[in-house]
Amino acid sequence: MDYQKILREIELEVNALENSGEVANYIPELAKINPNKFGMHLTTVRGEQYAIGDSEEKFSIQSISKVFSLAMAFSLLGEKLWKRVGVEPSGNPFNSIVQLEYENGIPRNPFVNAGALVVVDVLLSELKNPETDLFAFVRSLTGSEDITYNPVVAQSEKETGYLNAAFVNMMKAKGNIVNGTDEILDFYYKQCSIEMTCRELAAAFLHFGENGKSYDHAGFSLTKSQVKRLNALMLSCGFYDESGQFAFKVGLAGKSGVGGGIAAVYPEEFAVAVWSPKLNKKGNSVRGFHSLELLTTKTESSIF
Amino acid sequence: MDYQKILREIELEVNALENSGEVANYIPELAKINPNKFGMHLTTVRGEQYAIGDSEEKFSIQSISKVFSLAMAFSLLGEKLWKRVGVEPSGNPFNSIVQLEYENGIPRNPFVNAGALVVVDVLLSELKNPETDLFAFVRSLTGSEDITYNPVVAQSEKETGYLNAAFVNMMKAKGNIVNGTDEILDFYYKQCSIEMTCRELAAAFLHFGENGKSYDHAGFSLTKSQVKRLNALMLSCGFYDESGQFAFKVGLAGKSGVGGGIAAVYPEEFAVAVWSPKLNKKGNSVRGFHSLELLTTKTESSIF
Amino acid sequence: MDYQKILREIELEVNALENSGEVANYIPELAKINPNKFGMHLTTVRGEQYAIGDSEEKFSIQSISKVFSLAMAFSLLGEKLWKRVGVEPSGNPFNSIVQLEYENGIPRNPFVNAGALVVVDVLLSELKNPETDLFAFVRSLTGSEDITYNPVVAQSEKETGYLNAAFVNMMKAKGNIVNGTDEILDFYYKQCSIEMTCRELAAAFLHFGENGKSYDHAGFSLTKSQVKRLNALMLSCGFYDESGQFAFKVGLAGKSGVGGGIAAVYPEEFAVAVWSPKLNKKGNSVRGFHSLELLTTKTESSIF
Amino acid sequence: MDYQKILREIELEVNALENSGEVANYIPELAKINPNKFGMHLTTVRGEQYAIGDSEEKFSIQSISKVFSLAMAFSLLGEKLWKRVGVEPSGNPFNSIVQLEYENGIPRNPFVNAGALVVVDVLLSELKNPETDLFAFVRSLTGSEDITYNPVVAQSEKETGYLNAAFVNMMKAKGNIVNGTDEILDFYYKQCSIEMTCRELAAAFLHFGENGKSYDHAGFSLTKSQVKRLNALMLSCGFYDESGQFAFKVGLAGKSGVGGGIAAVYPEEFAVAVWSPKLNKKGNSVRGFHSLELLTTKTESSIF
Repeated sequence: MDYQKILREIELEVNALENSGEVANYIPELAKINPNKFGMHLTTVRGEQYAIGDSEEKFSIQSISKVFSLAMAFSLLGEKLWKRVGVEPSGNPFNSIVQLEYENGIPRNPFVNAGALVVVDVLLSELKNPETDLFAFVRSLTGSEDITYNPVVAQSEKETGYLNAAFVNMMKAKGNIVNGTDEILDFYYKQCSIEMTCRELAAAFLHFGENGKSYDHAGFSLTKSQVKRLNALMLSCGFYDESGQFAFKVGLAGKSGVGGGIAAVYPEEFAVAVWSPKLNKKGNSVRGFHSLELLTTKTESSIF
Repeated sequence: MDYQKILREIELEVNALENSGEVANYIPELAKINPNKFGMHLTTVRGEQYAIGDSEEKFSIQSISKVFSLAMAFSLLGEKLWKRVGVEPSGNPFNSIVQLEYENGIPRNPFVNAGALVVVDVLLSELKNPETDLFAFVRSLTGSEDITYNPVVAQSEKETGYLNAAFVNMMKAKGNIVNGTDEILDFYYKQCSIEMTCRELAAAFLHFGENGKSYDHAGFSLTKSQVKRLNALMLSCGFYDESGQFAFKVGLAGKSGVGGGIAAVYPEEFAVAVWSPKLNKKGNSVRGFHSLELLTTKTESSIF
Repeated sequence: MDYQKILREIELEVNALENSGEVANYIPELAKINPNKFGMHLTTVRGEQYAIGDSEEKFSIQSISKVFSLAMAFSLLGEKLWKRVGVEPSGNPFNSIVQLEYENGIPRNPFVNAGALVVVDVLLSELKNPETDLFAFVRSLTGSEDITYNPVVAQSEKETGYLNAAFVNMMKAKGNIVNGTDEILDFYYKQCSIEMTCRELAAAFLHFGENGKSYDHAGFSLTKSQVKRLNALMLSCGFYDESGQFAFKVGLAGKSGVGGGIAAVYPEEFAVAVWSPKLNKKGNSVRGFHSLELLTTKTESSIF
Repeated sequence: MDYQKILREIELEVNALENSGEVANYIPELAKINPNKFGMHLTTVRGEQYAIGDSEEKFSIQSISKVFSLAMAFSLLGEKLWKRVGVEPSGNPFNSIVQLEYENGIPRNPFVNAGALVVVDVLLSELKNPETDLFAFVRSLTGSEDITYNPVVAQSEKETGYLNAAFVNMMKAKGNIVNGTDEILDFYYKQCSIEMTCRELAAAFLHFGENGKSYDHAGFSLTKSQVKRLNALMLSCGFYDESGQFAFKVGLAGKSGVGGGIAAVYPEEFAVAVWSPKLNKKGNSVRGFHSLELLTTKTESSIF
């Protein structure tokens, strides 16, 4: 398969369309991004690398980071993790507190904000140096030693993150949070403001698509079955209230972030990351979503 | 009307029944109360005083205090207050966050917790010494200089009050809270842990039933029309998810608290306060509600 | 009190304002009404009659009729009625099916559509000739023998009343409906399309304000306490999602209909009916609501 | 892969466990089934057939039939279908009307009852002989000419199907239903009461797993991309409120029915159907779900 040719076709088709949508504006620091950025990187299980556009530029991975913290927590607790967070799609926007109230403080899945906050709570309880471990893990996954978070973005998120504080307190009221609110939020905002390139994201996600290999990074290991389950979660719940659409139109396990990034996996063949800051109303990158739809149509690589 | 005779009949009838319900247990300090306490005090616009049982014992007035802080905020902002909090019954339990999310951070009314927290936010913004003013106001209403709050109860509430923290943060996220979360909660828990006797409560509420007199206490004044509107709010929204039942069976404007107290007003005739710690599932005093139903049946004093 | 002078002042003030709002358009037949109609009739317990504008013109009373069918069902079943329908405000628009699903088919109160349909179900089960009885009852209340329903409106409602069919079926699924869907809906639409004048409505409602008199019409009798409870229900729940506002600003027990009518009661003194077809977004007559607010302000006749 | 050996292992493991759960009891006719029935049939793209237990016995396929009617409607309308029904998981039980009300009569996906009723509405509008076509389609898919529905079950469902009548009426009220309520429900209950064996179901579903072949049955054809999208929908939404769990633990596209059947597809390799009447609280076959979890664990055939 000539992936480079296909990526170039995608670039041409995407550039021919109006760059619609809106840059995430609720985090002031993110709103400053150049809305015309566009990059894509695809890496295969054979080690081939294909890229277009701004694929080597760092951007804020935001909710894509939830996959990494979830992998760590799943490695630490195993199936016990699912007593504290579900595996069902939410059927509600990613920032809904309604579900929490009706379901006794158990978030629907680890990719809604409330679920990701429970995952952080687990890391804080289980690890001596959770922050050090997070970065060691992500660096091991990507092979890039310089990966870190943007403290200005983290601070910007904290200053406007009242809804997340509401989530933590609601779950504390229901008995599903152990650690302090500030401690959890501080860690969460650092995690969300990690910056990576498309190439680094693709490298990290490729590990979720190599079923034959052992999965062990910086001391966090997952069985083959656990990796498959992470993929199932990404497919069911990885795109907020648009997860069904992504499965329907793209057909890959993946995760998006409000920084405009999406990373996805086609098992036993490739991982891909795309970045374009303008989001649709559901919080997913408009051109990122469209690029991946083109990719799986052209390559017939849907998992279905 | 021989109110003393009627109160004694009520006492006999109430004592003949099993003391059912549960003492509020989510505030550890309140759970220690003797569940068999029962007192009632009725005071008329003519200055007559009638009482039975433990009517001279202080208890935690809890949500009844919301009437006092609301009166202050209404006096300060007038009709502008209703841009930040509604006047409709909630149709949901008093601790529901769902409504807040669907209605953009505007609480349904000032007697649900979220609404009372907005009222506190107003007091903190408008007053130089809100705490001093609150106690001056309540002391002026009751004529009792020794009224204060119970710091142990306030602390106990704060340590378990994650749901209220969730409310404040949710409303901050929606732009309906100005002051700091801790500052608001500290004030709120002091207000809720005010201790008063049935006599003092009846004295305070009598002011809401004297339409002909001017209403001005410690510098907080309300017009006759504003006092009537406070009464309308108490009737529509004063008993959590059981406000309709109270209007239906008792037919007075009033307000209950999870400390087991209820205060109510029959305009131009009397105010009454009753205290019995055991609550029904809706959070209202079982014997308190029943006593007031007997009172208005015997005296035909429903406002309808 | 010179009620005629006050009614004329109200007429002047109302006419000085723009006639805002929209005529109910979901019932095609009702949408044809002249939007500038305005009438008001006040009758006192002493038998005095005061009127302005189109007070002698028949209009579709719509949901105001729910008070009459409720009075009949309450007379037939007594307190047992409240096992099948609640007495709490809904906190949701009058056409919400959500509450029904969450609360097992028990409507919040008899004035939401679902509740009124349960009331009809009761009448159909308890009466041999429910339709004959309904008209006998309403004619007895008003003293007008010519009161009937508009079959064209009834038919128009039936043809568009899918939501009401959904309510009946949902409650049947939950076990709270006995009779057939069509039978219930046919009766309901006849009831809603009854036509009355302001004078007739005021005459009918005056019976709810005469506490000293026995209440017995066409064989349907209510105790003094039951009449008070009907008033409590009207105050808490009579104005859809705006009941709190009506209690707050007008302070009378009353009931509105989407035909633009409102009827209300000031116990021991008067009943009043007003008609103006344009509705606000909550489904209540804009000028009707405003007129009654002016009336209780000018006469200081709020029940609080 | 020795599928026969694996099926026998599954049979042994399943039989070693208590047969927990409850037979669907809301359809009286279905409640009569022998709860100990258990059958499984697996067929590969190479035409191999493997079976255990009661795999040749007909049972009521119930909601599995929604896949067939959806395939027909998708073939008829193409992408236009998704204007009338969504592709997102519901996040609510399969019989929830709440979502319909909040989202203007557009069901979340075609596998919730409301969505399947919209699909029926499409078939009734687009086809001259919808019933004839349905059975022709299903017979073509399975190669069994004797497939039909059980009229006693259909009648039993109709007599208790008030909730479905509520759905249709709610959607009619919102403008998303064209045909008559009775006509829609009659067709729907016939469709749901189709009876098939595990072998027949596996044969029918195999067509969704053969990507290389053209898909054209009884005049209803789907493109390769459309077949993939049906699979995506089954994975996201095929198991009511437990779809995430099924993706997580089994990892196949599939569909369950309250008759106790489940059919699923592993693309390019096999289709499988299992039947065991006892259901968990989410409405899925307990032993069916467990059997498929064992199957994909033993064969490593998850799509992830």
